[in-house]
Amino acid sequence: MPNFRFAVAQINPIVGDFSGNLELIKLEIAAAAAKGAELICFGEMSLSGYPIEDLAQRPDFLEKAEAALHQLRSWVSTEFPDITVVVGLPTKVTSSHSNWAIAHNSAAVIQNGKITGLYHKHHLPNYSVFDEYRVFKSGNQTLSFNIGELKIALAICEDIWQVGGPVAAAASLGVDLLLVLNGSPFERSKSEARLELARDVAKRENVAVAYINLVGGQDDLVFDGGSFVISAEEVLIGRLPQFDCGLGVFDFISKREIRFHGTSVSNQTENWQIWNALKLGLRDYVEKNGFRSVLLGLSGGIDSAVCAAIAVDAIGADRVFGVLMPSRYSSAHSVSDAEDLAKRLSITVSTEPIQTLVDSFANQLDLSGLALENIQARVRGSLLMAISNSSGHLVLTTGNKTEIAVGYSTIYGDSVGGFAPLKDVEKTLVWSLANWRNSQAKLIGQVEPIPENSITKPPSAELREDQKDQDSLPEYEVLDAILAGYLERRMSFDQLVDEGFDEVTVDKVIRLVDSAEWKRRQGAIGPKISGMAFGRDRRHPITSRYR
Amino acid sequence: MPNFRFAVAQINPIVGDFSGNLELIKLEIAAAAAKGAELICFGEMSLSGYPIEDLAQRPDFLEKAEAALHQLRSWVSTEFPDITVVVGLPTKVTSSHSNWAIAHNSAAVIQNGKITGLYHKHHLPNYSVFDEYRVFKSGNQTLSFNIGELKIALAICEDIWQVGGPVAAAASLGVDLLLVLNGSPFERSKSEARLELARDVAKRENVAVAYINLVGGQDDLVFDGGSFVISAEEVLIGRLPQFDCGLGVFDFISKREIRFHGTSVSNQTENWQIWNALKLGLRDYVEKNGFRSVLLGLSGGIDSAVCAAIAVDAIGADRVFGVLMPSRYSSAHSVSDAEDLAKRLSITVSTEPIQTLVDSFANQLDLSGLALENIQARVRGSLLMAISNSSGHLVLTTGNKTEIAVGYSTIYGDSVGGFAPLKDVEKTLVWSLANWRNSQAKLIGQVEPIPENSITKPPSAELREDQKDQDSLPEYEVLDAILAGYLERRMSFDQLVDEGFDEVTVDKVIRLVDSAEWKRRQGAIGPKISGMAFGRDRRHPITSRYR
Repeated sequence: MPNFRFAVAQINPIVGDFSGNLELIKLEIAAAAAKGAELICFGEMSLSGYPIEDLAQRPDFLEKAEAALHQLRSWVSTEFPDITVVVGLPTKVTSSHSNWAIAHNSAAVIQNGKITGLYHKHHLPNYSVFDEYRVFKSGNQTLSFNIGELKIALAICEDIWQVGGPVAAAASLGVDLLLVLNGSPFERSKSEARLELARDVAKRENVAVAYINLVGGQDDLVFDGGSFVISAEEVLIGRLPQFDCGLGVFDFISKREIRFHGTSVSNQTENWQIWNALKLGLRDYVEKNGFRSVLLGLSGGIDSAVCAAIAVDAIGADRVFGVLMPSRYSSAHSVSDAEDLAKRLSITVSTEPIQTLVDSFANQLDLSGLALENIQARVRGSLLMAISNSSGHLVLTTGNKTEIAVGYSTIYGDSVGGFAPLKDVEKTLVWSLANWRNSQAKLIGQVEPIPENSITKPPSAELREDQKDQDSLPEYEVLDAILAGYLERRMSFDQLVDEGFDEVTVDKVIRLVDSAEWKRRQGAIGPKISGMAFGRDRRHPITSRYR
Repeated sequence: MPNFRFAVAQINPIVGDFSGNLELIKLEIAAAAAKGAELICFGEMSLSGYPIEDLAQRPDFLEKAEAALHQLRSWVSTEFPDITVVVGLPTKVTSSHSNWAIAHNSAAVIQNGKITGLYHKHHLPNYSVFDEYRVFKSGNQTLSFNIGELKIALAICEDIWQVGGPVAAAASLGVDLLLVLNGSPFERSKSEARLELARDVAKRENVAVAYINLVGGQDDLVFDGGSFVISAEEVLIGRLPQFDCGLGVFDFISKREIRFHGTSVSNQTENWQIWNALKLGLRDYVEKNGFRSVLLGLSGGIDSAVCAAIAVDAIGADRVFGVLMPSRYSSAHSVSDAEDLAKRLSITVSTEPIQTLVDSFANQLDLSGLALENIQARVRGSLLMAISNSSGHLVLTTGNKTEIAVGYSTIYGDSVGGFAPLKDVEKTLVWSLANWRNSQAKLIGQVEPIPENSITKPPSAELREDQKDQDSLPEYEVLDAILAGYLERRMSFDQLVDEGFDEVTVDKVIRLVDSAEWKRRQGAIGPKISGMAFGRDRRHPITSRYR
């Protein structure tokens, strides 16, 4: 068999931006052709962006996707007639009884100026954040094609997570190379899982596997790239970067012998991966939605410090603005720590004291207790939104997953904002990320971005005299462990108590989580990094008597 | 064939309240038995409440459902051993590869002290507000049983909306009576559609059909009851009330001859149905979540007036509290109309002027334009929430569907609240409901609840001098028509223009709708009454360049 050169392109498309995505695709095709590639494959739905959610139900959207495909076909046949292109897009089903699922999740093959094949995803994920059974119809055909003596087949994402089905059917035809188009969002430990899975497929079906992922943030999802090729002997031939675009060029000598033109990227630490997921998620929310800058309240605490550091890493210090909003209950260190942070990050800050405003509300309504605590947070929220209305900044809300879980926040107060960087980051992980980010800076001789005091001091909402989080919540180590059991592992009260957690504490935590559902429903989106993020990943009724 | 008496029970269960639901079920069994019924059938998931969403993924939830079923079996076998009971509940699948779908949506048959049958729903709806493919596994067996010479089969909701499948299979066995357990939420024109559908089934399969629905509000859904029985000759034998619990007792002489012990309820007008859906949705959100009272801002406008009237109808005037929050831009009529409303409804109102608070914000931040407009709404939101924090009232947010669609509202301002009665009610329908409610009052000689001036005056947000909604929005008749096309009929820009709408207006409306997605994502829930409600019925990305 002659040497066959192919490319995998890891791009960052934008949902619905057909002309922009087309340009990205053309650039990669030109680059791959310049390197002598005979085939290039893109990720799932590269042409339309992914996931398109209910846009898949709009006939005009599907018609525009098809038009973009024909534009691509025409351009390829003129500019690079010798290259085969495989690209993902939604296509209209020929007949449908309902107007809820009128599309396939497809991959098109462009060869010799023609669309020579259209593969439709078989296995539609309908769990976790995915609703594909809602908007897509399953395909029921395999697709393979030849380039010279080489036999190539297609699969889309979930198709390889299910045993049997199209992959086995294709492999039984004697396929050499399986191209898998993916839109696989980041989760902790998932990149290892993908590699394992592809190894299993390679071994079971005796086929080389090219796993091509998307990259970029889309609302609450972060596609982390990390595309790779594995030989039929389960050897990892080459891996593209995580959280960055890239083009990988490979020489296929046989399904057992493949060579990578480049340096394979090795797996980074979990903290590195999470930090980069948060950074990319924030950056793309800002850029894809056309914001020039972000604004956040700086309390001197760890959450706002980590959010600010992520924002600076994501879009640069000149686009990040902080506001200090001290009250009567703000400690001296809350101001000095916030100022220290701003200096370390070189971001612009202003100060808007809230006490006069708070007193006006408190006097007018004779507020005390919880109502008085909350009004402080709501005055801060109103200040942030007013500055945002005047300046166009996107407001970031800095609450972490633990707070959001137990409702330890003021709705319409500290929860205001369009994006929540730490939405899926529990408090103990916030600390871990802060330490990690500081150590990374130290390693290369840079200023550590997060003030040590923000990391080490006991957390406090500072809404009343001498308040500490642990006045009303269990220690964060315990709380996060109970939450992991209750949320991620779907454990019951009994099971948690059996694991050794204190009965009263478990009972309290479960009650807090359940009764905060209405607040979570009104919360900002933020990047998913865990196996169970709040939002579309976890759909619980607000009205429920289940305990 | 001897006369066979059976009952259909239309109950209002609460999600997760196994012991409470069990009590409701026992009461109906006792009542049916007292009337000589040999069989009683309940709606879909009566034992657990419906929809249970991701609670279906929790093994402990499924175990508690099973335990409740065994309690019921044991009680029936002691108290009413001669009656056959059919009840809906989730059951655990015997094996599952994933922990996302570990349950069936089932119906259990209790006969002679035993659970003699378990039917699992075949067709799992996974469109509109339904995510059943996410949390349930499909059944693949029919279930029929005999009582004397009579052959009875089961189906669950969606099973009869799909041609073929379990209904056809059951009918081919010579079934006389098909019991259909439903959890079918209200939508405009849906009660007629259900009747048509059941008639089709009766005709096609030559079988009598008992259609048993739930009743009650569950978050954004309102189950409207209206259970009915149709003979194999497609004659409507009897229909239970809409929006109310009920027990219907029927004598089955043959599948062509059935008699109803009661008065069949005829279909009411659309305005009556919608008003009652909104009323029940609100009442059950309040009662099932344990609120004593509700609070809403009264602007003198039509939206808050209609919300207040619905609230009074739902839970009584003594549990409804209004706040007037006038500003510099509030017209004289906005105060007098709100006071008139409060008098007509006999609700308690207080007045909290906002100007001093607004001026404090405006001076501190030097606000003007949109920022100054929004701060007024946010001060009002903070006042409402502060009063709620002090008093425990549930805050109602009074925005209508049209406003929510085009983002004509201030997030964290007039959008604050736990429940949005008019979330799915477009502006033109708000007026229609107001006129209808007043005319109903007039008909029976009561005070018309809604001030005429609130209905007839031009709508205004009153956030700046002489502001009118139509300064920035098209006339509401045009706007609602464009929105119906864009949202419900999924029409494109081109199609809307082809229908005769002005190009510039259509373009503006579509842009407004698309760019308000982030606000809608943080909105309160409210009762669905249309074919396309905001919330889980319509899932659009925030980040999208599609135009």
